[in-house]
Amino acid sequence: MWGGRFAEGPSAIMREINASIPFDKALWRQDIAASKAHVAMLGAQGIVSAEDAATISDGLDRVAAEYEADGVPEDWDLEDIHMTTESRLSELIGPAAGRLHTARSRNDQVATDFKLWVRDALDQADAGLADLQRALVEQAGAHAGTIMPGFTHLQTAQPVTLGHHLMAYYEMIARDRSRFADARARMNFSPLGSAALAGTGFPIDREATARALGFDAPTRNSLDAVSDRDFALDYLMAASQCALHLSRLAEEMILWASQPFGFIRLPDALSTGSSIMPQKKNPDAAELVRGHAGRVIGCATALMITMKGLPLAYSKDMQDDKPPVFEASGLLALSIAAMTGMVADSAFDTARMRHAAELGYATATDLADWLVREADIPFREAHHITGSAVRLAESKGVALDALSLQELKAMDDRIDERVFAALSVEASVAARASYGGTAPDQVRARVAEARTALGMEE
Amino acid sequence: MWGGRFAEGPSAIMREINASIPFDKALWRQDIAASKAHVAMLGAQGIVSAEDAATISDGLDRVAAEYEADGVPEDWDLEDIHMTTESRLSELIGPAAGRLHTARSRNDQVATDFKLWVRDALDQADAGLADLQRALVEQAGAHAGTIMPGFTHLQTAQPVTLGHHLMAYYEMIARDRSRFADARARMNFSPLGSAALAGTGFPIDREATARALGFDAPTRNSLDAVSDRDFALDYLMAASQCALHLSRLAEEMILWASQPFGFIRLPDALSTGSSIMPQKKNPDAAELVRGHAGRVIGCATALMITMKGLPLAYSKDMQDDKPPVFEASGLLALSIAAMTGMVADSAFDTARMRHAAELGYATATDLADWLVREADIPFREAHHITGSAVRLAESKGVALDALSLQELKAMDDRIDERVFAALSVEASVAARASYGGTAPDQVRARVAEARTALGMEE
Amino acid sequence: MWGGRFAEGPSAIMREINASIPFDKALWRQDIAASKAHVAMLGAQGIVSAEDAATISDGLDRVAAEYEADGVPEDWDLEDIHMTTESRLSELIGPAAGRLHTARSRNDQVATDFKLWVRDALDQADAGLADLQRALVEQAGAHAGTIMPGFTHLQTAQPVTLGHHLMAYYEMIARDRSRFADARARMNFSPLGSAALAGTGFPIDREATARALGFDAPTRNSLDAVSDRDFALDYLMAASQCALHLSRLAEEMILWASQPFGFIRLPDALSTGSSIMPQKKNPDAAELVRGHAGRVIGCATALMITMKGLPLAYSKDMQDDKPPVFEASGLLALSIAAMTGMVADSAFDTARMRHAAELGYATATDLADWLVREADIPFREAHHITGSAVRLAESKGVALDALSLQELKAMDDRIDERVFAALSVEASVAARASYGGTAPDQVRARVAEARTALGMEE
Amino acid sequence: MWGGRFAEGPSAIMREINASIPFDKALWRQDIAASKAHVAMLGAQGIVSAEDAATISDGLDRVAAEYEADGVPEDWDLEDIHMTTESRLSELIGPAAGRLHTARSRNDQVATDFKLWVRDALDQADAGLADLQRALVEQAGAHAGTIMPGFTHLQTAQPVTLGHHLMAYYEMIARDRSRFADARARMNFSPLGSAALAGTGFPIDREATARALGFDAPTRNSLDAVSDRDFALDYLMAASQCALHLSRLAEEMILWASQPFGFIRLPDALSTGSSIMPQKKNPDAAELVRGHAGRVIGCATALMITMKGLPLAYSKDMQDDKPPVFEASGLLALSIAAMTGMVADSAFDTARMRHAAELGYATATDLADWLVREADIPFREAHHITGSAVRLAESKGVALDALSLQELKAMDDRIDERVFAALSVEASVAARASYGGTAPDQVRARVAEARTALGMEE
Repeated sequence: MWGGRFAEGPSAIMREINASIPFDKALWRQDIAASKAHVAMLGAQGIVSAEDAATISDGLDRVAAEYEADGVPEDWDLEDIHMTTESRLSELIGPAAGRLHTARSRNDQVATDFKLWVRDALDQADAGLADLQRALVEQAGAHAGTIMPGFTHLQTAQPVTLGHHLMAYYEMIARDRSRFADARARMNFSPLGSAALAGTGFPIDREATARALGFDAPTRNSLDAVSDRDFALDYLMAASQCALHLSRLAEEMILWASQPFGFIRLPDALSTGSSIMPQKKNPDAAELVRGHAGRVIGCATALMITMKGLPLAYSKDMQDDKPPVFEASGLLALSIAAMTGMVADSAFDTARMRHAAELGYATATDLADWLVREADIPFREAHHITGSAVRLAESKGVALDALSLQELKAMDDRIDERVFAALSVEASVAARASYGGTAPDQVRARVAEARTALGMEE
Repeated sequence: MWGGRFAEGPSAIMREINASIPFDKALWRQDIAASKAHVAMLGAQGIVSAEDAATISDGLDRVAAEYEADGVPEDWDLEDIHMTTESRLSELIGPAAGRLHTARSRNDQVATDFKLWVRDALDQADAGLADLQRALVEQAGAHAGTIMPGFTHLQTAQPVTLGHHLMAYYEMIARDRSRFADARARMNFSPLGSAALAGTGFPIDREATARALGFDAPTRNSLDAVSDRDFALDYLMAASQCALHLSRLAEEMILWASQPFGFIRLPDALSTGSSIMPQKKNPDAAELVRGHAGRVIGCATALMITMKGLPLAYSKDMQDDKPPVFEASGLLALSIAAMTGMVADSAFDTARMRHAAELGYATATDLADWLVREADIPFREAHHITGSAVRLAESKGVALDALSLQELKAMDDRIDERVFAALSVEASVAARASYGGTAPDQVRARVAEARTALGMEE
Repeated sequence: MWGGRFAEGPSAIMREINASIPFDKALWRQDIAASKAHVAMLGAQGIVSAEDAATISDGLDRVAAEYEADGVPEDWDLEDIHMTTESRLSELIGPAAGRLHTARSRNDQVATDFKLWVRDALDQADAGLADLQRALVEQAGAHAGTIMPGFTHLQTAQPVTLGHHLMAYYEMIARDRSRFADARARMNFSPLGSAALAGTGFPIDREATARALGFDAPTRNSLDAVSDRDFALDYLMAASQCALHLSRLAEEMILWASQPFGFIRLPDALSTGSSIMPQKKNPDAAELVRGHAGRVIGCATALMITMKGLPLAYSKDMQDDKPPVFEASGLLALSIAAMTGMVADSAFDTARMRHAAELGYATATDLADWLVREADIPFREAHHITGSAVRLAESKGVALDALSLQELKAMDDRIDERVFAALSVEASVAARASYGGTAPDQVRARVAEARTALGMEE
Repeated sequence: MWGGRFAEGPSAIMREINASIPFDKALWRQDIAASKAHVAMLGAQGIVSAEDAATISDGLDRVAAEYEADGVPEDWDLEDIHMTTESRLSELIGPAAGRLHTARSRNDQVATDFKLWVRDALDQADAGLADLQRALVEQAGAHAGTIMPGFTHLQTAQPVTLGHHLMAYYEMIARDRSRFADARARMNFSPLGSAALAGTGFPIDREATARALGFDAPTRNSLDAVSDRDFALDYLMAASQCALHLSRLAEEMILWASQPFGFIRLPDALSTGSSIMPQKKNPDAAELVRGHAGRVIGCATALMITMKGLPLAYSKDMQDDKPPVFEASGLLALSIAAMTGMVADSAFDTARMRHAAELGYATATDLADWLVREADIPFREAHHITGSAVRLAESKGVALDALSLQELKAMDDRIDERVFAALSVEASVAARASYGGTAPDQVRARVAEARTALGMEE
C-alpha cells in the first residue's frame, strides 16, 4: 500500500515528511546563540537560578563544541535542530536542561534562529557584492576610454565606452546592496519571548535578549512574530533581483566570448576547455550564473506560494520556508563570487571592440545632433537629413565620415566642414558628456566617486 | 497562412504585436509632465528658443486638455503614447513640435514616464494601507479584551484577544508600507537626459528636470537608466508581499464566516447573497482578495522572467514591463479597499468566539507555567504533569478547572488552590503580559502607539 | 577578494559551481544502463571489437556493484557522474575504457540518463497515485450514504454525501495519472546517438539502443535531442497540478480536523501531538503536503525560467535542470504517500457531519426545485418564493421543514403536504440522482466503476 | 476612508471587485451555445414545454444577434455574462426566460462556457503551430545543405546544416501540438448538469447536452466538475512550453540579426527601422515574442497559485481563472503568428554562415573520429592527438586542413593523406549521417516525412 519505500506504513512516512533536521541543522550556531541569550536573561530575571543558568549555558557551549567538531547528528526522531540540541543538553547536564525551555516555545525559537541566519546571509551577500563592485570599478577605471559598440535591441546603436558599460552594473549592484540593507533594517526585531503565539506570563526581559542577539528591539506583536516570514521573502526577493542583474552580465559575457563577437577572453580558471578543441573555451561559469537566476526566482516563488492564505498563527507549512532560502543563498553566493572572478580576470579585445563600434553608422545620431546644434534645425528634420546621408554612404559602401563635404552639402546646405569632427567614434563618445553620459571624463568622475564610496585607494 | 485574424500577413501582425498604445496610454499624464519639464529646461539652457519652448509647453497643455476631455486616441500606427502625443502636438503647433525631442530619446522618455507612474502607485498603495491600518486599530481598540481561541495548525492552542489578533495585521501592513517607502526612495532618480543609451552632447541640465519632476537627483549612468526596470520589480514585489498579507486576512475572514466557526458577520455591502438562501452570505470580496494574490504574484513572476538575461541597453522585451504593473496595481488597490471595508464593517460574534476559546483545554499551558513559577518544577516536567491532568479531565468530559483540588494534587502534590485562578481564559490572556503579548493591557498600549503613529485622535 | 569560502580564488569557485556530481550521482543506475546499451550496440555494429565490448560491459557491472555497495564517490574534479564512472572504469579495465565514448558525447549521454530517470519518476508517481485512488475508493464506498454539508464559498450550500466528496478527488487523481501517462508517451524517444549536437559519422544503430533502453524509437533531430528538456518540464507541470490537487485535499482535512468543524479524526501516525495538550492533534502531514505544493510549483517555475531564451544546442544553464526535478520528485512522492495514509486511516465523525448538514437551510434549493417540478413555476419565481420561506423560518429560529403547511401555503398556494418529503437532507441527496450527482446510488455506481478500473475486488 | 476612487464606500468597491463582465463577456458565444443546448435538452426531456423551449431558444438567437452587431453591454450590476444574457432574454421574451435556469447553476454554466472557450483556444493554437511548422519545413527544405556553425555554450562546436537547425524547432513544435492535443482529450467532458455542486433532481439528459456541445461524455462527479480548473491549467502549461520554444527561436533570430553574427536579414514587415539609422533594423517582433514568454509563464503561475489549497466546491477565487487564460491566449496567438512570419520571410546570408562555420576548428572532432575509425585508436587517445594538432594549427594561425601531412604524421604516425577528405565542413556535415544527424540527406528525409505529416505537396 505505501510502496516499497514506506513499507512500515504511515509512521515511516510521517518520520520522513516531518523531520526538518536534514536541513535545519544549518541553524545550529543561531540556535545555540539564541538559547544562550535566553537562559542568560532567565537567570538575570530570576526565572531560573543563577546556578542553573550557568550550567545550561556551559552545557550549550559543550554541545556547540561537539557540533563544531563532529557535525550535527541527524536523528529523525528528534525532528529538528531544537530538539536535537535540547536532547543532547539533557544528556550532558541532566534535569536542569528542562528549565531552558521556560517562557519560550519552538515557534518563537525557530523564528529567532532563522532570522539570525537570514541576517547573516544578507551580510554575506552585501560583502560579496562590494567585492564585485570593486572588480567592476577597477576594470571600468582601466577602460574609461575604451570604445565599443553600444547596443539597443542587440543592434549597434551608438559608440559607448567599456568603462561606462561596466559602471552600469556598478549601479545595479548598488541598488541590490540597498535592497539587502533595507531588508536587514526591516527584519531586525527579535521574536524571542513571543512564545507559542500569545506571549508569556513569566517576567521576561525581551529587550535584553534582543540586545544580546544584535536586534534593534523586540517585535511588537507575538502572533505576528511567530507567523511572519516576511524577512525570508525580503531576502529571496532581493536575491532574485540580484540574480537577474548577474544574469544580464552573464548573458553579455557569453555573447562577448562567442566567436562572432570576440570581445572578451574569459579567465581560464572560470571556463572549461575541451580536450578536442583547444581553442574552445566554454563560458560555463557565466552560463551557470545565468541558469541559477531561474532557480533563485523559483525559490522566491515557492515561498510566496507556501505563505499564501495561511491563517494565523504558526502552521506547519512554514517549515517549507528554509529549503528555498538555503538553496537560494548558496546559489547566490556562488554566482556573486563567479561573476567577481569573471569581471576581475577577463581580458578585453579592445581592438575588436573598437572596430565593431566603427561599423554600422553608429555615429549617425551625432550628425543629426550637429545639425540641430550648429544649424538650428528641428530634431525631427535633422533626423530626416541624416537618414539620407546614411543611405548614400550605405549605397557607396563607405562610412559616414568618408562622404565628401560636397555630398553632405547636397543633403543640406547648412552642413560645413566642422561636421567631420563630430563623426568619429572618439568624438562621439567625448561629446556625450551630459551627467551620467558615456564620455570618458564622465566615466572617470563616476569611477572616482565609486572608489571613495567603496573605500578603495585613489 | 496567417490565419483569419492576420489576413494581411506580417504587417498586420507587426502592427498588433508592436503597438503599446492600448496600454501605455495610461501614462499620458506622466508623459505630458515629463515633456513639459524637458522643454522648460531646453528653453532655460538656450537649446531651444524661449519662444519655441513656450509654444511647445502651451501645446502640451492643449493636448493634455484634449486627453482629459476625450480620452487618448488609440491609433496603432502611432505605436505608443509618446508618438501619439508628439503627433498631435505637431498638428496643433506645427514644426516647432519637432524641437521637443532634442536631447532625449524614447528610451529615457519611457523610463521617466513609467517611473513617475509607479511612484504614484506606490503613494496610492501607502495611503490605502494607512486607511486599512486605521480600520484595524479601531476594531482592535474596541476588542482589546475580547477573547477568542488562538490557533496554531488551525487547532485551538491558547486563548488570545481579538484586538491582539487584529494588531498582528497592523504589523504586517506596517512592514508593507516600509517596503513601499524603501522602493520609493530607491527609485527616485531621474532617467531623463540619458537619451538613447549614451547620454547627449547637448548642454542639458539634468538636475533641473529631476527637480521639476520631484526626483531626488538624476541617475548616474545612462546605460543603466534606460535598461533598468528594478523600480517596477520593487513595486511588484512589495505588492506581492502585501497581497500575501491580505490573502491571510481574507482566509481568516472566510473561515470565521463559515457556519462551523461563526465568528463574524461580514458587511452586506461586501458579500453576495443568494435569492434562494437568504441566510447565505458569500464572502466574495474576501475570496477575490485571496484569489488576486495569485495574480499579483503572477505579475511579479512575469516581469522577472522577462528581464532575465537581457543584454544592455534597451530591448523591446522591456515593453512587457507595463501590463503586469498596471494589472497588479489595479488588483492591489481593489484588494486594499475591500479589506478595509471588511475590517471596518464586520461584526464579531464575541460570545461564540469566547465559547470556542473555552473548549479544547486551551489553558493547559497556564497550568504548566503555574507549576514552573509557583513550584519551581522544570518546564519539561511541568508539561508532563499537565498532560496527565488534561487526560483526566478529558476522560471525565470536563474542563481543566472543573477538576477538584484533590484530583490535581494526586497529579502533583505541590499544586494548591491558587492554581484555579490561572485556569480561566480571562486569567490566561491577562497573564500573558510580556511585551507584545496578548494581554488586554498590552493590546491597549500597542493600539495607543499605533493611533499616534497614524495621527488618529486619542 | 573571494571571501573566506573561496580563498583559493576563481579555481575554487569554478570547482564548486561547475561540479554536478553532488546531485547527478542520483543518475548512476541510468548512466550504467545507457552505457551498457551503447557498448553492446558498438560491439554488434563492429565499431568496437566484441572482446572490448564484453570487457567494458563487465567493467560497468563492476562499477555498478561498487556504487551499490559503497555509494558513488563525490570527487568534484571528476565533475559529474559520467566522468566519475568512466574514470573508475578506466582504473578497473585499462585503455579499453577509452572506447566506450566512441560515437557519443556527454550531451546525448546526459539527455538519455536524465530521461530514463524522469521516466522512472513518472512510473512511481503513477503507482503511488493508484494507491491513493484505492484509498479514496474504499472510503467513498464505505461512506456512499454519509451525509455532510456541501460548501460553496465555504458556506453551507446543499447536503452532499461524503463518498461523493471523496470521489471528486478520485477524478482529479485520474486526470493526474493521465497527465503523467501523456508525458511518458511524449518523452519516450531515445537521444542516444545524437552525440554532441550533430549526430555522428560512425555506423551506429540507434534503433537498437532505443529498444534496449525501453524507448519507442530514437529522436528525430540531434540538435533538438541534446537541447530538449521538455520531458523534465512535462514532469514538473504534471507534478505541480498533482500537488495542487493534494493541497486542496490537505486544506479540507485541516479544516475538518479543526475544533469548530470536528468532522474528522486524523490518524495518530500522521499527526503530531503536544506533551502539554493531549487533546491537540496537529495535522502536520496535511500542512506539509499543502506547503510542499508551493515548492513543487517553485521547481517548475525555476526550470521554465532557466530554459527561456536559450539558443541551441546544449548550454551549461541546462545543468540546472536536475535539482528542481529531484526536489519535486521527492516532495511529490512523500505528499502522495502521506495523503494516502491520511485518507485510508482517518475516521469521520459522521454524526457531526450530518448535524452540520442540517443547519443553514441547506435544502432550500430542494423547495425551489419542488415548486418548479410540481407546480410548474419558472425557476426564478420559485427561488423568490423559497427566499420568503427561508426568511420566515429564520425569523422563527426553526428549520425549513418545521414550518407548517399553512405557513408555506401563505407563501404560495400551490404548495401542498408532499413538499415535506423533499426537505430532509436524506431526501435532498437521494433526489440528486442525475449522472455524476451526489445521490448514494450514483456514488455507488461510480465507486463500482472505479474498483473495476483499479483492479480492486468487488 | 475609501479614497477618492471609492467615495461611495464598500458598495462601490464590491461592484468593481465582483464584476466579471469586463472580461467574461469574451465567453458570450459559448454561453449562448451552452444555453441553447441546455434548453433543447430541457424541452426534449419535458422539463420545460416544447413551446417554452422554442421561445427561449429563439430569444437566445436574438440576444446573440445583438451581441454580434453591437457588442456585449457592460453593466456591472449584472455582474457577468450569464446574468447579462439572462436579463436581456427576459426583456425580450418575458417570464419564460425564468425557465432557462432550471436544473443548472452558474457554477456548471461557467465551467461549461469556459471549457468551450479553452477548447477553441487549443484548436487555434494547433492551427497556428501547423502553419509555423510549414514555414519551418519550407525553409529547412531550401537549406538542407546550407552550412552554418553549430554552437554549444554559444561557442562554435561543429558544422551543421541550417535545415537541420530549423527542423529542431519543427520537433519542438510537434511536441507542443501533442501537448495541446492531450489537453483537449483530457478536458473534453461536459460539466453541464452538475448544477451548483451536487447534481440535480430534474430528469436531465447530460449525454444529450454533452453531445450537442461536442464533448465526449459528461463529467462523472458534480463536485469535481464545478471545482475543476485543470483544463485551464493544462492550456496555460502547454502555452508556457510553447512560448519557451518560441523564445529560443526568437533569441537565435536576435543573435543572428546582430552585426557581429550577420546571419540573417529579418523581414521588413516584422522589424522596426529608425529614421536616423536606416541600416538599423530592430528585431522588435522577435524581442516581443521572447518577452511574451515571461508573461505567459506569469499567467500559468498566477492560476496555479490561485487554485492552491482551495476547498471544494466552487470558491469565488476561481473567478480569477479567466484573465490569465485570456491574456496568455492573446499573447501566444500573436507570438506564433509573428514567428511564422519571421521564419517564412527571413533571408539567410549563407555565405556569412558558411564562413563562420569554417572558423574555430569546428572539424576537430572529425579528425578524432577519423583516427578512431581508420586507425582503431581508442576515442580518448584520439582526442588527445587531435588536441595537439589543433594547437599546432592555432600557433601557425592556419586551419586544420592547412597543416601538412608531415606535420600531422608527427602527431601520430597512423595518419595518412585520406584524412584531408574528412576535414572540410562539407565532409563533416555529410559524414554525420546517423539517424537524426545533420547530414543533408538526413535533413531531406526528415523534411519529406514532415511534409507528408503536414499534408504539404511533395
